[in-house]
Amino acid sequence: MKTFLADIQNEPAPIPLDINRVGIKQLKLPLQVLQKDGGLQHTIADVDLSVDLPKEVKGTHMSRLLESLLEKTLLLSLQKVKELLFTLRSKLKAQVARASFNFPFFLDRQAPWSEQSFLMDFTVQITGILEKNDLCFVLEVRVPVMTVCPCSLTISEQGAHSQRAIIKLTAKIQKMVWIEDLINIGLQAGSVPVYPLLKRGDEKKVVESAFANPMFVEDVVRKAAFLLDKVENILGYRVEVESFESIHNHSAYAIISKPIKEQI
Amino acid sequence: MKTFLADIQNEPAPIPLDINRVGIKQLKLPLQVLQKDGGLQHTIADVDLSVDLPKEVKGTHMSRLLESLLEKTLLLSLQKVKELLFTLRSKLKAQVARASFNFPFFLDRQAPWSEQSFLMDFTVQITGILEKNDLCFVLEVRVPVMTVCPCSLTISEQGAHSQRAIIKLTAKIQKMVWIEDLINIGLQAGSVPVYPLLKRGDEKKVVESAFANPMFVEDVVRKAAFLLDKVENILGYRVEVESFESIHNHSAYAIISKPIKEQI
Amino acid sequence: MKTFLADIQNEPAPIPLDINRVGIKQLKLPLQVLQKDGGLQHTIADVDLSVDLPKEVKGTHMSRLLESLLEKTLLLSLQKVKELLFTLRSKLKAQVARASFNFPFFLDRQAPWSEQSFLMDFTVQITGILEKNDLCFVLEVRVPVMTVCPCSLTISEQGAHSQRAIIKLTAKIQKMVWIEDLINIGLQAGSVPVYPLLKRGDEKKVVESAFANPMFVEDVVRKAAFLLDKVENILGYRVEVESFESIHNHSAYAIISKPIKEQI
Amino acid sequence: MKTFLADIQNEPAPIPLDINRVGIKQLKLPLQVLQKDGGLQHTIADVDLSVDLPKEVKGTHMSRLLESLLEKTLLLSLQKVKELLFTLRSKLKAQVARASFNFPFFLDRQAPWSEQSFLMDFTVQITGILEKNDLCFVLEVRVPVMTVCPCSLTISEQGAHSQRAIIKLTAKIQKMVWIEDLINIGLQAGSVPVYPLLKRGDEKKVVESAFANPMFVEDVVRKAAFLLDKVENILGYRVEVESFESIHNHSAYAIISKPIKEQI
Repeated sequence: MKTFLADIQNEPAPIPLDINRVGIKQLKLPLQVLQKDGGLQHTIADVDLSVDLPKEVKGTHMSRLLESLLEKTLLLSLQKVKELLFTLRSKLKAQVARASFNFPFFLDRQAPWSEQSFLMDFTVQITGILEKNDLCFVLEVRVPVMTVCPCSLTISEQGAHSQRAIIKLTAKIQKMVWIEDLINIGLQAGSVPVYPLLKRGDEKKVVESAFANPMFVEDVVRKAAFLLDKVENILGYRVEVESFESIHNHSAYAIISKPIKEQI
Repeated sequence: MKTFLADIQNEPAPIPLDINRVGIKQLKLPLQVLQKDGGLQHTIADVDLSVDLPKEVKGTHMSRLLESLLEKTLLLSLQKVKELLFTLRSKLKAQVARASFNFPFFLDRQAPWSEQSFLMDFTVQITGILEKNDLCFVLEVRVPVMTVCPCSLTISEQGAHSQRAIIKLTAKIQKMVWIEDLINIGLQAGSVPVYPLLKRGDEKKVVESAFANPMFVEDVVRKAAFLLDKVENILGYRVEVESFESIHNHSAYAIISKPIKEQI
Repeated sequence: MKTFLADIQNEPAPIPLDINRVGIKQLKLPLQVLQKDGGLQHTIADVDLSVDLPKEVKGTHMSRLLESLLEKTLLLSLQKVKELLFTLRSKLKAQVARASFNFPFFLDRQAPWSEQSFLMDFTVQITGILEKNDLCFVLEVRVPVMTVCPCSLTISEQGAHSQRAIIKLTAKIQKMVWIEDLINIGLQAGSVPVYPLLKRGDEKKVVESAFANPMFVEDVVRKAAFLLDKVENILGYRVEVESFESIHNHSAYAIISKPIKEQI
Repeated sequence: MKTFLADIQNEPAPIPLDINRVGIKQLKLPLQVLQKDGGLQHTIADVDLSVDLPKEVKGTHMSRLLESLLEKTLLLSLQKVKELLFTLRSKLKAQVARASFNFPFFLDRQAPWSEQSFLMDFTVQITGILEKNDLCFVLEVRVPVMTVCPCSLTISEQGAHSQRAIIKLTAKIQKMVWIEDLINIGLQAGSVPVYPLLKRGDEKKVVESAFANPMFVEDVVRKAAFLLDKVENILGYRVEVESFESIHNHSAYAIISKPIKEQI
């Protein structure tokens, strides 16, 4: 009879090459995120956990990755991600540990005229990377805005094309930067932010504000980079704006990047 | 030694229930589509093939579905889909056969001022259903357009929000209706169509035309339905318009449906 | 100066055609779902709300759809969806109201040998439809399972191909059917269910159970339909199984449907 | 009357920051790809074109990006991408030009026993980057394979779980490397490749081969990296394997990377 005592993972690797990252992804998990106001917000994250693997060892122990979550992450904050990384590294006997959480984050958004509030979602990703004595985080937020085309506004007798655009802000940090602060930069960087609930008077105000502030994707990406440059504790960033052009079937986009290439 | 002569599929079903459809999907295949002008267009389709299965039989023979393609569908036309359906039904010993092809279809689109041409894609789906003596087709096209909001245009001192919207036209037919004719209805049903390549003078003309023709999703869905009502050979249809609102993070949509429910 | 008192939506429709559904979709919202054990579960839903619109009226009032949510749906249960539908119908002066919520739902899943527990997600959709005096619900769950191919197991000297498959159960109901009960049917209908966390002894047990219970998609769809037939309060159903074949780059699938065509 | 002679793009930038990349994406285009055997293959690509923009200038001229395509890319080969990059750079008065094409590529795949042939798709991406005097290409292919779990095979009385996995090979090159050669490495790196059309005798042979060659994602990523190490003209690479585990609802993955971080 076969036995499950055999530990195939611990056998020598048939091809002795170091593996940069091995782990699990597309794991869904409900958790709570720490807000700037100290409150906690329920959300559901796509989780990605990985460690490195030295060339001598055939395989890692995937189930231990999930077990580390049980101990450390019902609550999501930079501190908790840090603890998780140390747990991963020790449980998996690794040098490098990496954990990433991608989730919707909600803010109450108030309409500018009626002042009615409603929740709106922003996609957020928090990644922690622990490598030797080096610990860093990559914080990413996606903020939808409206853009009005300045060229179109200047040359047309009436009107100008407008559209929804997504600003993706990615910041490499070592100390605390709040999700809300990054989102706030995005909200200021388009012609206007978008809103969940608008009454007629709100719609009038939003559209008039947008047409008073026409912006190309080039203008948006520069505005966001300009605002990011003022934020403390950011070691590097990448801003990408994608605008779903209403006169075309394709997107316009622009990117400004200050050395940040956290891919591997 | 085991033998592959065993035909498990032909064994009796452990639970004797009729199966409406069994087959394959997510199969990609390059093929050529017949154009209205008689020309052929190269494209790549997602293919979905299925047959029914009586309650006595355990399983169908999936590989025969693919083999039917070899014989019948380097070329895609209603006639070829019809031949494929008869082949499927006889090869699989079935009562009902169904084949669906989803693919990008390109038309040359001319800019309204510079008259420069460029190809633009429309997503098309052709489905054929053969059931006893009944043969019908469901033709679906997706046409991107621009919409300008009439409410916003009326109440704002300057401007109005505009956005890209997708019109999905689904028509049940027994006789020939051309893909190009359905796309053409979509192109007329928004504030303006969208274009691949626009020079500055084109952009001016497109935006001015759009602002002279503001439409809610309600207006667009009615315009498309009104135009479809005039087309011969359409037994039933469904029009869905989804507008990616530039002032919101969600979509507005509207549907008009004349009895067509080809789901199963 | 322009005024926002103008109510463009209430003007007569330029093309007098009834609209089956008009509303919003792709709206994300955090909410709580009622569990069978009486507890509440935090989740995040994609929301789709619509009403009909008579041919005389140009447009509906989209913002009222969102306002109805404010009053009625921090909590999601059939009772709450019913209340929302009545609110939508009266606020929008409509005959037909429809509300749909698509969200991840988590169950604690215990590994069969180690008995370790971990949460696993199932995608659920609850749709409520109110038409004149007719109120019904469509409940849909997606359950991932493992399938082992019976043909492959019979003809191969060693092994058989296995893969992940998704069972989608859609039930039309008028009285209460629990999400957990539908998921439970899915969990029983594959070769084995899949699990979030498995230790080595669990993996042995799961694989041996799966190989003792080989099933085609045809077997899975029949097993699920057979189990659904025994559930009270189900007026109609549709079962679809899609298997991501490990020997192919395409899917195998099967569908059994008892009159249910809730599309429009 | 307003004039379209105004060239808003050429005005000074309100915020003087260099932009790394500005352009268009999500543009679909039919084209032909050069095969290793000298033949041409029709496909449909998602196109992404961008240039840099100095801090003095407000905006780029997006329509010229599309016009460059008209001149240069009915045919896709490294030589043609190179010509396109030089055209982009001169037409847009830029220092850096970048062009990326993502498309399905088909190979005839022969079943191992019946020897029946059928086309199978592989997703390919060709990116060209021209920066000052530096020209390089990034070639990426995705190859689906089957993996059989070695642990599961050792500990189970009968069977082992298998699943579809995707190997993504990304290579930075300056001289020619054929798409077919990269795909070929992927086809050798799993337990077995997957096939489009298999008869019963083929299925037996494929499954038996796979069970004779069990591999973790760790084994697959090492095998692919080992084979890539032998290919000439590769300056750096990244191999990622994602396995859609049949016993779980999440993926296992592994990455080996030799300095390549072409993101910006």
